[in-house]
Amino acid sequence: MAKDKKPAKKQHADGVAVPAADKPKSHLSKADYLAELEPLELALNNLARWLQHTGRRLVVVFEGRDTAGKGGAIAAIADTLNPRQCHVVALAKPSEREQSQWYFQRYVPHLPAAGEITLFDRSWYNRAGVERVLGYCTEAQALAFLDQAPSFEKMLVDDGILLVKYWLTVDQAEQERRFAERLEDPLKRWKLSPIDLKSRSQYAAYSAARDAMLAATHTRHAPWTLVDFNDQRRGRLALIRHLLAHVPDTHVPPEPLRIPPLAGPPQQENLPKRFRPI
Amino acid sequence: MAKDKKPAKKQHADGVAVPAADKPKSHLSKADYLAELEPLELALNNLARWLQHTGRRLVVVFEGRDTAGKGGAIAAIADTLNPRQCHVVALAKPSEREQSQWYFQRYVPHLPAAGEITLFDRSWYNRAGVERVLGYCTEAQALAFLDQAPSFEKMLVDDGILLVKYWLTVDQAEQERRFAERLEDPLKRWKLSPIDLKSRSQYAAYSAARDAMLAATHTRHAPWTLVDFNDQRRGRLALIRHLLAHVPDTHVPPEPLRIPPLAGPPQQENLPKRFRPI
Amino acid sequence: MAKDKKPAKKQHADGVAVPAADKPKSHLSKADYLAELEPLELALNNLARWLQHTGRRLVVVFEGRDTAGKGGAIAAIADTLNPRQCHVVALAKPSEREQSQWYFQRYVPHLPAAGEITLFDRSWYNRAGVERVLGYCTEAQALAFLDQAPSFEKMLVDDGILLVKYWLTVDQAEQERRFAERLEDPLKRWKLSPIDLKSRSQYAAYSAARDAMLAATHTRHAPWTLVDFNDQRRGRLALIRHLLAHVPDTHVPPEPLRIPPLAGPPQQENLPKRFRPI
Amino acid sequence: MAKDKKPAKKQHADGVAVPAADKPKSHLSKADYLAELEPLELALNNLARWLQHTGRRLVVVFEGRDTAGKGGAIAAIADTLNPRQCHVVALAKPSEREQSQWYFQRYVPHLPAAGEITLFDRSWYNRAGVERVLGYCTEAQALAFLDQAPSFEKMLVDDGILLVKYWLTVDQAEQERRFAERLEDPLKRWKLSPIDLKSRSQYAAYSAARDAMLAATHTRHAPWTLVDFNDQRRGRLALIRHLLAHVPDTHVPPEPLRIPPLAGPPQQENLPKRFRPI
Repeated sequence: MAKDKKPAKKQHADGVAVPAADKPKSHLSKADYLAELEPLELALNNLARWLQHTGRRLVVVFEGRDTAGKGGAIAAIADTLNPRQCHVVALAKPSEREQSQWYFQRYVPHLPAAGEITLFDRSWYNRAGVERVLGYCTEAQALAFLDQAPSFEKMLVDDGILLVKYWLTVDQAEQERRFAERLEDPLKRWKLSPIDLKSRSQYAAYSAARDAMLAATHTRHAPWTLVDFNDQRRGRLALIRHLLAHVPDTHVPPEPLRIPPLAGPPQQENLPKRFRPI
Repeated sequence: MAKDKKPAKKQHADGVAVPAADKPKSHLSKADYLAELEPLELALNNLARWLQHTGRRLVVVFEGRDTAGKGGAIAAIADTLNPRQCHVVALAKPSEREQSQWYFQRYVPHLPAAGEITLFDRSWYNRAGVERVLGYCTEAQALAFLDQAPSFEKMLVDDGILLVKYWLTVDQAEQERRFAERLEDPLKRWKLSPIDLKSRSQYAAYSAARDAMLAATHTRHAPWTLVDFNDQRRGRLALIRHLLAHVPDTHVPPEPLRIPPLAGPPQQENLPKRFRPI
Repeated sequence: MAKDKKPAKKQHADGVAVPAADKPKSHLSKADYLAELEPLELALNNLARWLQHTGRRLVVVFEGRDTAGKGGAIAAIADTLNPRQCHVVALAKPSEREQSQWYFQRYVPHLPAAGEITLFDRSWYNRAGVERVLGYCTEAQALAFLDQAPSFEKMLVDDGILLVKYWLTVDQAEQERRFAERLEDPLKRWKLSPIDLKSRSQYAAYSAARDAMLAATHTRHAPWTLVDFNDQRRGRLALIRHLLAHVPDTHVPPEPLRIPPLAGPPQQENLPKRFRPI
Repeated sequence: MAKDKKPAKKQHADGVAVPAADKPKSHLSKADYLAELEPLELALNNLARWLQHTGRRLVVVFEGRDTAGKGGAIAAIADTLNPRQCHVVALAKPSEREQSQWYFQRYVPHLPAAGEITLFDRSWYNRAGVERVLGYCTEAQALAFLDQAPSFEKMLVDDGILLVKYWLTVDQAEQERRFAERLEDPLKRWKLSPIDLKSRSQYAAYSAARDAMLAATHTRHAPWTLVDFNDQRRGRLALIRHLLAHVPDTHVPPEPLRIPPLAGPPQQENLPKRFRPI
């Protein structure tokens, strides 16, 4: 978090002290990031093996500001795991029919079966965020959602699902820098949509929506964790560390496997004549 | 391709000349790989924008030897694209109910809608490969599949879907090296299953199954492309280049967007007191 | 059952009087049934039109004793309505994968969209009934279900879904008569399963399970209505009347339609020569 | 329709004789219908048991003129069978997303698993009928469909699915009578849509579309059977008889079951005090 970009003492309206001092001076280097990431990947693999072994199920919700870095954080986790076990769910906007159904209905089919992990890249909290801020739902619908979300999540948790929720923070100056980058970098251009631009001027409204969301849905059974993503690499490491700490005792040794010697000399690909590989 | 690891002149049984000379002397370095990858990522983004613009649909099938590098090739493509547009489908083994249904039934729901890309990490060709070799289907079922697959694919292609199929090759010596690595590297351990070990001694049987598959399903409307993955980085680059060449004229300029100045000074995250980000 | 409509002699353990005397002397005749049914069918059609007009959604849960007559009651409703609007959901037993998911997960996709009706022929209450009595779930799972069901239903009701729950009663003597009929009548044979026979000796256990279910899930937002199905025709009429009373003001006049005269004389089917209709 | 069962006077353009004379003098009485239906119901139950026993799968497609009587014919079959085994599929119009997918995609998930029956109340043939006649698809799409349907059906049949297709005929005079009835009878009002009225003046266009459909999709592996539904009761009986003849040897004796005597006297429903059944 960047409560602390500049010379402080400064006191925010709600009384949170914002010390400039503890702001990271510079972003984490890629080399340092990868060095710190590796043991976490190992631990994620242990976690995944434990889930498989015990049949437990894990749901992780990723929410936060536009540009905060949800996609990158999800990729950092999913890339090291078996895609048959760890599913990323990034739903398109609902169809007209879906819009008329129970609000949670389209998310439910993606909840994990035994041993599985579901990473929600945005989630049912759309309604408390972008839908509410940009007026894609009525205020009554937003309030009803805030009322229902804790019940919905309690059912999942009571059913034995491990549920962890992250909200990724980023200051507007950094967000602006990233929007500009998306506009200029053709590899990031797809991340920039007209809706993003519409959202851009609503930084404060998103803050207010988030605060209302936290007030209503930060529960004992499904608390929120906020992660500072002003430095995305540091944010990812912090998030993964937190996730791992959430499920602490996951040690299950890998099944012992032995690779016996081959019966003959190793063979080479011997392709039918007309097939010449590229 | 590496049918040709050593001093050649050697003539394969089927008459394909195997020149040692054109064997890559060494694997592509990571730096070189990334440098070559970047323009391809750009072109993939153009392809994706073109699909969205035209409403065309793209299906890419990834098949090949165990350890060949399907997952890595898929990630190289998917990582640069919008996960709401480009879906990776890696199905778990079928349920008993699914096993009794039309063979293609469980794949069909994942076919793309307008503008979408589906990357199949293994596909309906399971039946021609692992199922046939390890006896998970009857020989009659395998033959029926080989008979039906071209019809099934013709329907998709006639419906306007762009369908591209890759089979990734790797020599057994290299495969063995990778199996050993999977056993030793805890980050790759999940890639190694008892089935892999069972498959390991069936290199020749997989070759025969592949050849039968090519003979039956390499059609004008849905041809196979074989890609040498003895060097995975070179393999990925070759595959992506081929994929891009398959859909050559995809230039659609990005929608012009302008980022107007903010109305006020950029704001900082101002979190409710009890929420301290990690 | 008509246990206590009037002063009775026999006193059950819990003090409920069970007068044999006011048992319906004879079953309602088919002609009388059909005469009484017709205006109800009309009202059901009005209800359906109102749902369509308002976009409201209706869920009706049918539970009760084996042989009580769930299927017949559902058919009496569904047969007069548009099958594109009114869906009957009779799920097969869950797959292994479904068994490991959130208990309510496999029911959720069947919840209605705007204007639709879903009739559940057995429902999530399986867990409180047959699963609990026959030991297909653990006692802890049954208790967890009883704890969760009111929350689940509250979410649906709060979302605006009209939810009505019926439990159909039948005395064991009548149930025995029907079991015997199922065994003898080849048209009813499919209704008789080995599980039914297993259930047959558990009449009291089902009573106890039902009472626990009522105690836990008879809520203000989703109350149970018990319907005496000792006479199935009377039961159906009572149930439909109650359902209609639950949604009282549903008058929407049908859209005015006019059938203009045909442009020419009416034509006859003129089939291609080789097609001779049967 | 029975137009040409015997020597006739009137000659249609294409030479099909249309004898008014052999039109059934009167409709089959309800009593006669029910008497004839009962043995057919028995045979349908045998068929269903045979499917379950052998794991075979049955798909029946119902197409035909508006008002011909598809729904009633389907009900006559489904009403006597286990709804967990025999599914009626009456799809709503496709969503925008579905419209952009492979044409057959939304039908595929409804294909039967082992032992199941699927009755399609309208089917993929929508495209050859209503969509083509009313211009809801392009002519190119209609032609592509006619080209693809035989391949699609061949795949199902080759997979072992029993596939039977019925097209229900009705003369326009009778159709007009039924449209008028739907307008007047409030119980049939939901069957009358603005689209029906639009279709009404297109009797000849539907004939032409049907003939094109028959020419393209009446195949050895999936032939059409036309059934005269000018008398709906006679039509249903003829259709069911034909269906049964299609799968002739289906005798599997029901599993022997014995109902042992109860351990004690039969019990009566003994409901918690506050629950008084209606």
